[in-house]
Amino acid sequence: MVALTDPDLLFPPEAHSRSLARDLYAGIKDLPIVSPHGHTDPRWYALNEPFPDPAQLLIVPDHYIFRMLFSQGVRLEDLGVASLDGAPVETDGRTIWRRFAEHYYLFRGTPTRLWFDHVLAHLFGIEEPLDATTADRHYDTIATVLQWENFRPRALFERFNIEVIATTEGALDDLEWHKMIRDSGWEGRVVTAYRPDAVVDPDFEGFSANLDRLGEITGCDTGSWAGYLDAHRQRRAFFKSFGATSSDHGHPTAETANLSDAAAQELFNRIRRGSQDERERKLFRAQMLTEMAKMSRDDGLVLQIHPGSWRNHSPSVFQRFGRDKGFDIPTRTDYVTALKPLLDCVGLERDLTVILFTLDESSYARELAPLAGVYPALKLGPAWWFHDSPEGMRRFREMTTETAGFYNTVGFNDDTRAFPSIPARHDVARRVDCAFLARLVAEHRLREDEAHELARELAHTLAKKAYRL
Amino acid sequence: MVALTDPDLLFPPEAHSRSLARDLYAGIKDLPIVSPHGHTDPRWYALNEPFPDPAQLLIVPDHYIFRMLFSQGVRLEDLGVASLDGAPVETDGRTIWRRFAEHYYLFRGTPTRLWFDHVLAHLFGIEEPLDATTADRHYDTIATVLQWENFRPRALFERFNIEVIATTEGALDDLEWHKMIRDSGWEGRVVTAYRPDAVVDPDFEGFSANLDRLGEITGCDTGSWAGYLDAHRQRRAFFKSFGATSSDHGHPTAETANLSDAAAQELFNRIRRGSQDERERKLFRAQMLTEMAKMSRDDGLVLQIHPGSWRNHSPSVFQRFGRDKGFDIPTRTDYVTALKPLLDCVGLERDLTVILFTLDESSYARELAPLAGVYPALKLGPAWWFHDSPEGMRRFREMTTETAGFYNTVGFNDDTRAFPSIPARHDVARRVDCAFLARLVAEHRLREDEAHELARELAHTLAKKAYRL
Amino acid sequence: MVALTDPDLLFPPEAHSRSLARDLYAGIKDLPIVSPHGHTDPRWYALNEPFPDPAQLLIVPDHYIFRMLFSQGVRLEDLGVASLDGAPVETDGRTIWRRFAEHYYLFRGTPTRLWFDHVLAHLFGIEEPLDATTADRHYDTIATVLQWENFRPRALFERFNIEVIATTEGALDDLEWHKMIRDSGWEGRVVTAYRPDAVVDPDFEGFSANLDRLGEITGCDTGSWAGYLDAHRQRRAFFKSFGATSSDHGHPTAETANLSDAAAQELFNRIRRGSQDERERKLFRAQMLTEMAKMSRDDGLVLQIHPGSWRNHSPSVFQRFGRDKGFDIPTRTDYVTALKPLLDCVGLERDLTVILFTLDESSYARELAPLAGVYPALKLGPAWWFHDSPEGMRRFREMTTETAGFYNTVGFNDDTRAFPSIPARHDVARRVDCAFLARLVAEHRLREDEAHELARELAHTLAKKAYRL
Repeated sequence: MVALTDPDLLFPPEAHSRSLARDLYAGIKDLPIVSPHGHTDPRWYALNEPFPDPAQLLIVPDHYIFRMLFSQGVRLEDLGVASLDGAPVETDGRTIWRRFAEHYYLFRGTPTRLWFDHVLAHLFGIEEPLDATTADRHYDTIATVLQWENFRPRALFERFNIEVIATTEGALDDLEWHKMIRDSGWEGRVVTAYRPDAVVDPDFEGFSANLDRLGEITGCDTGSWAGYLDAHRQRRAFFKSFGATSSDHGHPTAETANLSDAAAQELFNRIRRGSQDERERKLFRAQMLTEMAKMSRDDGLVLQIHPGSWRNHSPSVFQRFGRDKGFDIPTRTDYVTALKPLLDCVGLERDLTVILFTLDESSYARELAPLAGVYPALKLGPAWWFHDSPEGMRRFREMTTETAGFYNTVGFNDDTRAFPSIPARHDVARRVDCAFLARLVAEHRLREDEAHELARELAHTLAKKAYRL
Repeated sequence: MVALTDPDLLFPPEAHSRSLARDLYAGIKDLPIVSPHGHTDPRWYALNEPFPDPAQLLIVPDHYIFRMLFSQGVRLEDLGVASLDGAPVETDGRTIWRRFAEHYYLFRGTPTRLWFDHVLAHLFGIEEPLDATTADRHYDTIATVLQWENFRPRALFERFNIEVIATTEGALDDLEWHKMIRDSGWEGRVVTAYRPDAVVDPDFEGFSANLDRLGEITGCDTGSWAGYLDAHRQRRAFFKSFGATSSDHGHPTAETANLSDAAAQELFNRIRRGSQDERERKLFRAQMLTEMAKMSRDDGLVLQIHPGSWRNHSPSVFQRFGRDKGFDIPTRTDYVTALKPLLDCVGLERDLTVILFTLDESSYARELAPLAGVYPALKLGPAWWFHDSPEGMRRFREMTTETAGFYNTVGFNDDTRAFPSIPARHDVARRVDCAFLARLVAEHRLREDEAHELARELAHTLAKKAYRL
Repeated sequence: MVALTDPDLLFPPEAHSRSLARDLYAGIKDLPIVSPHGHTDPRWYALNEPFPDPAQLLIVPDHYIFRMLFSQGVRLEDLGVASLDGAPVETDGRTIWRRFAEHYYLFRGTPTRLWFDHVLAHLFGIEEPLDATTADRHYDTIATVLQWENFRPRALFERFNIEVIATTEGALDDLEWHKMIRDSGWEGRVVTAYRPDAVVDPDFEGFSANLDRLGEITGCDTGSWAGYLDAHRQRRAFFKSFGATSSDHGHPTAETANLSDAAAQELFNRIRRGSQDERERKLFRAQMLTEMAKMSRDDGLVLQIHPGSWRNHSPSVFQRFGRDKGFDIPTRTDYVTALKPLLDCVGLERDLTVILFTLDESSYARELAPLAGVYPALKLGPAWWFHDSPEGMRRFREMTTETAGFYNTVGFNDDTRAFPSIPARHDVARRVDCAFLARLVAEHRLREDEAHELARELAHTLAKKAYRL
């Protein structure tokens, strides 16, 4: 009875396939981590301070964890999630940790369980399963080592063998932590990514003020369409100067538009004056995806489209606790109609890279693989968010490979805020891909030498190439 | 060449996984049956009379069976399905049985085949395959034993090791059979469930008269919104007095609404006067789901939502043979938008249980698991109807577990009118779950001791807990 | 390191299942090929001339191939795809072949790879993998044998063991090649199929002129609804005289209508006068599916519905290169609502066969299997186009069999223009079906004798029966 860290984790049970998977994995398990899309805090790498207590590090910020406990009746307050009105919440790390440990059985069969067991075993040397009886002992172990020098962010970055990691910052961010990292002389490669939702989505909180601020920062006239676009160009260049190779766009849908310049200008004017017409606001978001794609054509930033999440589905939880509290729910997402205006404009460009993600797996084989399998500008992002899991990643390969091939995909994104879990997430992805390749070889659909080459591409090279890192 | 009743039925072929599945199954195969949702006739348990001839028991009422034969050109009349206009249909059980036997090969690869072989072998001791050449012999065997005392309903109930079974009755039902069961002193536990479709759906045949009748039964003024709601409360209490722990709702969609009391009252008045406005009738159904959820919050009945079936798709068959003739076809079903009004109202309640079912598997990973994985009030019903099958149940686990976990699911529902097939259906479900758990263990994604614990939960405990039985 | 032509190709790795699959396959691998739906050129069989150079035969006409290369930045011009404006494109077969060979690794994991390796090995005796270093050698080998007598179309037809093949011709086609085949005395059985898109779809290029031409050919007044329908009846009879047993319909959606005769007549008149009302044009297409079904009821032609492709998604590629250039993208497709008018009209007919195809796999278990599992007129076509692949065919069986059974499916369609790949495509389909059946047997869900019988049905008999060949 130990943690789920068997050397054969996630490999197929049949002996020959397992042996193939082991061989493939042996060839790639020590490759450095390329993390081209994620949400770790650049402040960690800048200040290099010790991480806080085990609960604040591993439980409180992880929406995968607290959403599951909440679904089974545990209150967010009791897990230390801060309320917006400042009402008191649990602050004792040990108490939060115990609550989590008592409910750890809920995660059986989930990727969170695999990641967490991996972190306990490989980072903290804890093989004994976590439950109510072991909670305190494990808490103490973790709390102790978190004070050690070699558990500070930069040391972990190096121990994790991270070749490069991208964080994500809003368009108005001053990138001060990135500047501090650069100025520090530390050699870890941390780059930013341009996330302009707050200044392209009229529904974003404070949109109008955000545009004013964008004007101040850039010296551009964000009261005019031309000035507004120039401001984006400036910010993109600024982000590029801090290593950015991509932009990221979390629109509710994949809808795009390609208005004439005159029509776009007029739309911008109405939006800038605060139009409350939902269709106009939607159309503006749609137009801005195409504008971003055109800028990408010019400046080389890779464009990532992450659509299809209904954010903050529970207004009550949103009011009490704010964004990112586990209440973002996937919705049915169309790509074939939605992307057509953008694709008509720039889809045939061979030097542009647009990476598509989805939360609607029914689009893999029906829409995304056929689109990425023909448009030069399109590539498929990996299985995302709820689907970033063994079964989800397996379905992704099974439903996209036959039409798009492997080479129209872009490797793995860990997409996480949970820094300690990064090696676990890449390890799970590498294992699942090796298992998939092993099956192809065992079924004689791929030669073994090809599988070895592909294992390296999926674990390392494709991400570097697609993200230009 | 024997019936499909191998001890390793449905277990994975690979030796180690198979051995794990066997061990898991050995630990749970004799657990009593909890059947929290089904459609057996309480009259059987009340009167305890012998079942009719083999065809009337096993063929004529089973829409899985006659729909398949109909699809291949066999007329419903020739299978003994009664026509509404009283036109003559086949009544000779042996003739019907022979027609079925000649076409039994059509069921290869279907769950009906597994259930039927299981019933033949385990209930009637028939191992020799059913076909045209053996039809008569098997008919005679079954016809004989059906006359025996130990093949009467209560004896079978006990032999099947049924701990508790729920039937389903309409809101206007007097529950006389349930009363007779209770008064009989027999110890079998048979409970009812509240199914108010006929008095909440304005499109139901005789809706207006049904509401009049509801008023008579309860003494409430079902001409007023308040009185109508009170009448529901009374009937729910009456059903609870006969053991009901749940209500069940078969709406065409999952749409819900949460109108102000004034607006709901006004809507009710228009509906009560016979509004023919389709939107109003739809809105009323939507509002009533939320009303039922609020009553559930108060009286503790578990709310089951079974949406997404286009009933009676062929008007010609409906006119000649009526409802439930195999022509109910699944449709694409949205949950994220549809359920929001209900969830905004009661979704965070920790003492309420709403169980969601679907006929649209594309919603498992995209909508249902993410919703049930965060809202305390929501749980996922098992793979349902067309998906209540080995592949269907496997897809259910593969597509829901990683986001919702096992503990936001509620065990198995046999959902059947076919009493003799109940052990077969639970056996198939238990085997599929053991096979799934064995795979997780074989891939080192779950410890073996955890799998044993989960096997018991899925086979027995979760249903009891979720349905409060 | 050899081509992917292992005798166990596509069989499950586990030893017992593999052995079962081998036995099943051994029993059916030499059955003749029935190809009831495809797009080979009847001119080949009529003239029996040598095929052109390797590139013109195997690369240039294959949209699976050039779409993948295009997606990775290779220009269509450089692959010899003719441009509409006559701008020069690569014409040197060897150069095109080299470009393909250099990019052959892109097809890893795709069905194209399996088909191509099969053709190289089994038709041309080439076992050495294709890549940049072997390109020239393989080109020479193929170019040489293509000049041989025994590599001409009729010789290959016989070597491929084709029992019967259907081509597809437009309604206005004079079937001259079919006449030449018939008159030649050659015994190969090549039949046509009636594809009237150009005269039933108002959006088809030259629709009005097409109807004029239809009138000329038939002597019917295609200015009137009655005459137009008569013209169809005549052409169908003409096609039947050249062996046609089916018609084929590639509408954008599965929408059908069943207007009164008066309303249909009036709609026709508006369409004939060139109505630009999109709803009317759509309604006309919908009505014509039902008209074709009614004619099928009368003349026995099997009706095939192939909906759900957004043709020519890139206007730029369409303008430069025309139709069928890899830019047809699947879309979400509804059947339950769309087919209802047709089904209400003829769905219960036991002598009519309507075969449904889909590009939207989410409809398999939700809509198509439930419909085909009850309506006598409906059957399911095999996994189609992007889904005509090992994983796609496996999903088809897993998602349709439990509700529709095997006997409401119609065997395999190769659907190809790529004549040399026909044996490869049937071989892949047979292997995937044997692997599926082997799994059912290994899991004790099917007896071995039944699996052998089914393997024959799926490989040969069902197609002959369903297509009346």
